[in-house]
Amino acid sequence: MQKRMALVVQKFGGTSVGSIERIQHVARWALESQARGDQVVLVVSAMSGETNRLVGLAQQINPVPYSREYDMLIASGEQVACGLVSLAINTLAGSRAGSGGSSTEKARPLLGHQIGILTDSVFSKARIQKIDTRLLESLIARGIIPVIAGFQGVDAEQNITTLGRGGSDTSAVAIAAALKADDCEIYTDVDGVYTTDPRLCPGARKVDRISYEEMMELASLGAKVLQIRSVELAAKYKVPLHVRSSFSPVEGTRVVSMEEMARHMKESSMEKVVVVGVAADPAQVKFRLQGLGDRPDAAARVFNALAKAAIVVDVIVQDTAQSSGEQGQLNLSFTVGESDRLLVRDVLQRLGEVGTVVEDPGLAKVSVVGVGMQHHPGVASRMFGLLAEAGIRIRLISTSEIKISCLIDGDKMKAAVQALHQGFGLED
Amino acid sequence: MQKRMALVVQKFGGTSVGSIERIQHVARWALESQARGDQVVLVVSAMSGETNRLVGLAQQINPVPYSREYDMLIASGEQVACGLVSLAINTLAGSRAGSGGSSTEKARPLLGHQIGILTDSVFSKARIQKIDTRLLESLIARGIIPVIAGFQGVDAEQNITTLGRGGSDTSAVAIAAALKADDCEIYTDVDGVYTTDPRLCPGARKVDRISYEEMMELASLGAKVLQIRSVELAAKYKVPLHVRSSFSPVEGTRVVSMEEMARHMKESSMEKVVVVGVAADPAQVKFRLQGLGDRPDAAARVFNALAKAAIVVDVIVQDTAQSSGEQGQLNLSFTVGESDRLLVRDVLQRLGEVGTVVEDPGLAKVSVVGVGMQHHPGVASRMFGLLAEAGIRIRLISTSEIKISCLIDGDKMKAAVQALHQGFGLED
Repeated sequence: MQKRMALVVQKFGGTSVGSIERIQHVARWALESQARGDQVVLVVSAMSGETNRLVGLAQQINPVPYSREYDMLIASGEQVACGLVSLAINTLAGSRAGSGGSSTEKARPLLGHQIGILTDSVFSKARIQKIDTRLLESLIARGIIPVIAGFQGVDAEQNITTLGRGGSDTSAVAIAAALKADDCEIYTDVDGVYTTDPRLCPGARKVDRISYEEMMELASLGAKVLQIRSVELAAKYKVPLHVRSSFSPVEGTRVVSMEEMARHMKESSMEKVVVVGVAADPAQVKFRLQGLGDRPDAAARVFNALAKAAIVVDVIVQDTAQSSGEQGQLNLSFTVGESDRLLVRDVLQRLGEVGTVVEDPGLAKVSVVGVGMQHHPGVASRMFGLLAEAGIRIRLISTSEIKISCLIDGDKMKAAVQALHQGFGLED
Repeated sequence: MQKRMALVVQKFGGTSVGSIERIQHVARWALESQARGDQVVLVVSAMSGETNRLVGLAQQINPVPYSREYDMLIASGEQVACGLVSLAINTLAGSRAGSGGSSTEKARPLLGHQIGILTDSVFSKARIQKIDTRLLESLIARGIIPVIAGFQGVDAEQNITTLGRGGSDTSAVAIAAALKADDCEIYTDVDGVYTTDPRLCPGARKVDRISYEEMMELASLGAKVLQIRSVELAAKYKVPLHVRSSFSPVEGTRVVSMEEMARHMKESSMEKVVVVGVAADPAQVKFRLQGLGDRPDAAARVFNALAKAAIVVDVIVQDTAQSSGEQGQLNLSFTVGESDRLLVRDVLQRLGEVGTVVEDPGLAKVSVVGVGMQHHPGVASRMFGLLAEAGIRIRLISTSEIKISCLIDGDKMKAAVQALHQGFGLED
């Protein structure tokens, strides 16, 4: 019985292409997938460590690099990996064919601009607008494996743009959506999605199946298995994701729609599991703007400026001072990742009239995630109770339909994750 | 009195951008040139060591890498340098303007495909066909310094191509020609062109002025100050070159037309200097094809195949065996650089019917160069005499209008250069 030919996009992260040996492993894997009858498209990240090296070079020149230069610079990391992986496939295929060489093309290295991955012009956090699939489809039809540099695109003026950290996931999903691929496999250095970060909590368990919505909230897990935007995109275009280890043939975690989840749940216990995982984000900074002024657009003005700089603001808390002399004055708090700290400071400084800026670094965010959660009001109080029992002070709270997050001191993150993971019965 | 505004292309080699400090030095230099009233265009090589690192990665996968991948891979080195230099200029200009940042654009990083450096498709040794100057001209008119990644272009199918080792020189000259620049400054780690390699011969002297023709022959000097092709191109388009040190403000060596040379010679002694320099090329390999067959096209067939692989063959000697049984059999010898050795072996193997191939590695080529040479028949005999006196055996001889080359054992190269340099009176 012959299997129907499937089109599979395989994305390999930095660790998966982190050495020549691993690159050769990826090449073998891709050729074997093809030999089993699948049509294969590869998307690769930069070799692990390379992006940090390049960012380090730029930061020696300017701690807040100009974005056009920054994107051109760091896009080179994926370019190198892309060239090497394609080289490895052609070399392996050539030696298998016994020709010793360059006669037949089995793979083609491709950069963002070569396959028209068109993005907007928000350097370092660009969003994909369109992908031209013509070249890809013609290569696939000829049995040539496209090896695509992830993370990068090109704007309408031919500037190189990048999609933000973890952007290769988004490249892979966008390409899978554009090609209407049957599967998008995300190969990484962990073997799937866990109930929490195993490095923080030894009882962490791998889950077989998770919904896009839950995955979005868990994407910020310590292991950073998937960029959030890639999951949003996968949900939007219903691209089936399969997160798995590049060093093991075992099934990983499938990220699917809620309908798909429900189909599988019936077989087990649909109502039982509420909390599916505990997420932890270290290195959060709280900015507090004290006495922001009483203009009705004061908050909008700040968040507009931050949005223009493409800064993702996480938790936001607003209150009006009542004690002291500054009656009617607005106080605004929000958190961002440590990596955006200098950029936020820069934006606020240029903006002016933002009151006194107080930075509170060294924080962490712990979150519990689960789709059924909103129907179980007990979850929030149980979470606060578990943290209190562990002697952990909560600095800010934020809730959504499927997530409750607490901002705590960074050095308490591990203890908090363990208390929550055990307290919500995720160890079984 | 105001100086006329000049358009100057400044090319910085790998050592000149080899560290963050040097990149910042280049940025200062470019801004100061602009402040003195010149219009400036930069062309940069990869940071020193980077191209070797990338080639090393590829060779771990395949000693004779597929060229499309190879070019994509090594082009990333110039991309990084280009991003960093542009970043350094914008950062420096921004801090001088006191804005602290990103408000005004003083430099723009540009890759080969972004300014339409169109080449043929001979990967790793591509030749430039056309440069689209529109974007460059519009940037220059707005006072923005274009910072161009050297060494790279793009073919008609949007594949990234590279121009061969030292190709950034060619990029710079081609851009200077396309823009009709007043000057093309080649910044390197030496302060000009020497009568021979100072590392081989302590008596080596810097020359103030040299003709394109002599420079072409001397470009292969140990110091490798200029890629030969770039000099050819400069001669063709009469681009005035100025080879100088990026670490010193003193004048270097100007490479000019013979008319220009003659104008200056009148002032000194036009007839006196015949030999202007002694060139040395280490790491040469001699291939000898014994019993190549007696087909009239035997030699053409071999050199066609080598040319198709874009291998530069240097000295060629052909003779017909007379002793032994193989009467009428053609014997063909030619030399190539050590770096092309595997490629040549590969080409010969595929070609087949090339007789017995004998490789003779570890050779060096020493040459004396001078425009007036052909009218002084004494030069050749003097050269052979000087080598004989030094006890150095000559393995092959090749002559041209302005050069006489001898192939010798590699370990005798230094002694040969010193004997020739002194013997031809180049020390004064």
